[in-house]
Amino acid sequence: MPTLKGKAVVAQSGGPTAVINSSAAGVIQTCLANRDVFTGVYGSLNGILGTLKEELFDLSAEAPAEIDRLRRSPASALGSCRHKLKDLDADRADYERILEVFKAHDVRYFFYIGGNDSMDTAAKLGQLARETDYRMIALGVPKTIDNDLACTDHCPGYGSVAKYSAISVMEAGRDTDALYTHDTCTVHEVMGRNAGWIAASTALASRREQDAPHIILLPEVPFVIEKFVDDVRRCMTDYKRCFITCGEGVRTPDGQYLADAGGQFVKDSFGHTQLGGAAEAVRAIVESQVGVKARTNQPGTAQRVAMHFASKTDVDEAYLAGQTAVTAALEGVSGKMVTLVRTDDSGRYGCTTGLADLEDVANGEKMLPPEFINDSGTGVTEAFRQYALPLIQGDAPLDVGPDGLPLYACLERTLVTQLTSSWG
Amino acid sequence: MPTLKGKAVVAQSGGPTAVINSSAAGVIQTCLANRDVFTGVYGSLNGILGTLKEELFDLSAEAPAEIDRLRRSPASALGSCRHKLKDLDADRADYERILEVFKAHDVRYFFYIGGNDSMDTAAKLGQLARETDYRMIALGVPKTIDNDLACTDHCPGYGSVAKYSAISVMEAGRDTDALYTHDTCTVHEVMGRNAGWIAASTALASRREQDAPHIILLPEVPFVIEKFVDDVRRCMTDYKRCFITCGEGVRTPDGQYLADAGGQFVKDSFGHTQLGGAAEAVRAIVESQVGVKARTNQPGTAQRVAMHFASKTDVDEAYLAGQTAVTAALEGVSGKMVTLVRTDDSGRYGCTTGLADLEDVANGEKMLPPEFINDSGTGVTEAFRQYALPLIQGDAPLDVGPDGLPLYACLERTLVTQLTSSWG
Repeated sequence: MPTLKGKAVVAQSGGPTAVINSSAAGVIQTCLANRDVFTGVYGSLNGILGTLKEELFDLSAEAPAEIDRLRRSPASALGSCRHKLKDLDADRADYERILEVFKAHDVRYFFYIGGNDSMDTAAKLGQLARETDYRMIALGVPKTIDNDLACTDHCPGYGSVAKYSAISVMEAGRDTDALYTHDTCTVHEVMGRNAGWIAASTALASRREQDAPHIILLPEVPFVIEKFVDDVRRCMTDYKRCFITCGEGVRTPDGQYLADAGGQFVKDSFGHTQLGGAAEAVRAIVESQVGVKARTNQPGTAQRVAMHFASKTDVDEAYLAGQTAVTAALEGVSGKMVTLVRTDDSGRYGCTTGLADLEDVANGEKMLPPEFINDSGTGVTEAFRQYALPLIQGDAPLDVGPDGLPLYACLERTLVTQLTSSWG
Repeated sequence: MPTLKGKAVVAQSGGPTAVINSSAAGVIQTCLANRDVFTGVYGSLNGILGTLKEELFDLSAEAPAEIDRLRRSPASALGSCRHKLKDLDADRADYERILEVFKAHDVRYFFYIGGNDSMDTAAKLGQLARETDYRMIALGVPKTIDNDLACTDHCPGYGSVAKYSAISVMEAGRDTDALYTHDTCTVHEVMGRNAGWIAASTALASRREQDAPHIILLPEVPFVIEKFVDDVRRCMTDYKRCFITCGEGVRTPDGQYLADAGGQFVKDSFGHTQLGGAAEAVRAIVESQVGVKARTNQPGTAQRVAMHFASKTDVDEAYLAGQTAVTAALEGVSGKMVTLVRTDDSGRYGCTTGLADLEDVANGEKMLPPEFINDSGTGVTEAFRQYALPLIQGDAPLDVGPDGLPLYACLERTLVTQLTSSWG
């Protein structure tokens, strides 16, 4: 079959990270280096929403220096979304709309950088294209700070949030050490809805037994209040202070989010379960059951986009993942997500890439395995440390402005002329 | 009068910062370089509490490399406290106890690194020493992220928290930009009980009108809900998203902390006013009155000890302040706090030191002046930018361990033999 020529669309989806733009740079720069195949390279504004609305912009019209600077810029420069498409049967009109827009612009390559929902969308789009005999290639590039995608050793985005979370706990832990006569307990909340990879990474802050964090609350380990209170009391006896890392998705044994348990904790005004309230729940328990003053740290979105202390390993691997998606596309591969494959050369960490079926990633979820959780359920094993430490290595370079703060990429994102009638 | 010979005691008080240890290093290294005068250099464990309890440790017994590493280590390595001594009349026994311990160890120099409460303690201690004819020198070294001490251009600790807060808002602002179709509004809470210096510093993140933060809520400007809701709506119209920096001490026009207003917001289980709840109050207002989804970031203690992105200017000035206190002491100066004095050589920032009476610092508080607040009350002026930018310049060096994370100083803090009967 002759090489498929046509335009490429790149999109980013889900929660921003420090390195999802590095993946985008890998895709864009590799496409632009192969303009005999890729007759155009478009960004889809705010993920798949931009294609549905035909809000596309020409990435070859952006300044090449700004495209390159994406490697050193956090968040999602193409715009992101949380628009989840359902099954082909349920949302068929949306999938058909996407193909309509792709056909109108002769888009033959779709690169979706995101988590399992995005891989699901890419898979179904590929399926519809095949069913309707529209020749196109759909490929996924992994992205999630949660590190919970199946089929890959780890996910771009994780190394940087792990590094930032570890340093935040190392530093805030020293704050608690210094002021234990007044603020005795600190509860530091980290992201991770179902998986405890980020919470676990804060263990890297601890080099000595007395170092923070003393207790790590993982979503994988049901929160039993009596055991927790005992653990805090023991910590108080041993160290006169207690530093707790709390995953936002920690649940009680009956599966209720801690943020909701008891009803006395914050919900948002729409009545939604507000993840992010777990630390407040833990604080209230410490103050009422242990009787010491506790405070909470909830860095929120600042943790996932902390480019200023990102892992160079993570930034480089994110770029590699994007680049690899394009080289796979050039070989005619479709329906796959690029994976990161760990190599071990005489104990020295290395990373290469592989490919996994989009469906397998879409339907999987990788929790922290039992061998990474210690016997007490409130810390990690040496095996986890060996897994995680290589991922946080190296200082990612920054472009610094005359004001002394980093310069992050600004794309023009001038929309191309619409060729279809408006949607929705 | 012949030079006063005797031991020196160094103590740290109040909230830890990224650079209070740099000030301690300035004091300790300068004392150790003048051992003909300083017959010993002791740390007081957990601020003045360590002197009251006679928990002192010999800083000359610490490894010199660890003392030097204090310049690159956050939090309070000598231990801190929030033990506020009252007036000499009310707490005379405590002041007498401190002098008892000082006399027992022949302590003739007391260096207190802290905020206005610490300057008050140092002033009163000096007063009692004079009254009782105990010859000693008491000097203060400024420290507060809040930047609200009187008599000094700025405070060691502020430049680093300003730099960290600016980068956090720059990065989290890009997160909100990217995901505005889902998470439309972000409320980022920063410290600063009465003064808005830290909140104001987040304006440094904004280079273009559309950049975060769009609205800065300052403790100096009463929070009027109707105006605030209008401001958010206008921001939504202009930018489709809204990023708000919220000072923890923002108050309603009748002086109530926003965190308390309405009663529906979190209090701690002791019934205390829990500062740190302001962002949750603002989030609830945005969701209920503007009708868009909002989330909160509350970095908490992590912000004040963020050595990993500290300002080199701040670290160096903190050291200079500590060093200057000792050189002043060698000249017989007492009852003063070292101040930072801004110099301007043809528009080029410089910093030298001065001295202010401890009492003047103890009784003062420096709010953000009107000329630094813009007309709308929700942002800063160019004059503020010119004031703040020099303070965040330069990357503070870090010692990095084989695990890729910073190495921060660990002092042994072996207590010296007690010479008095126990206290309290």
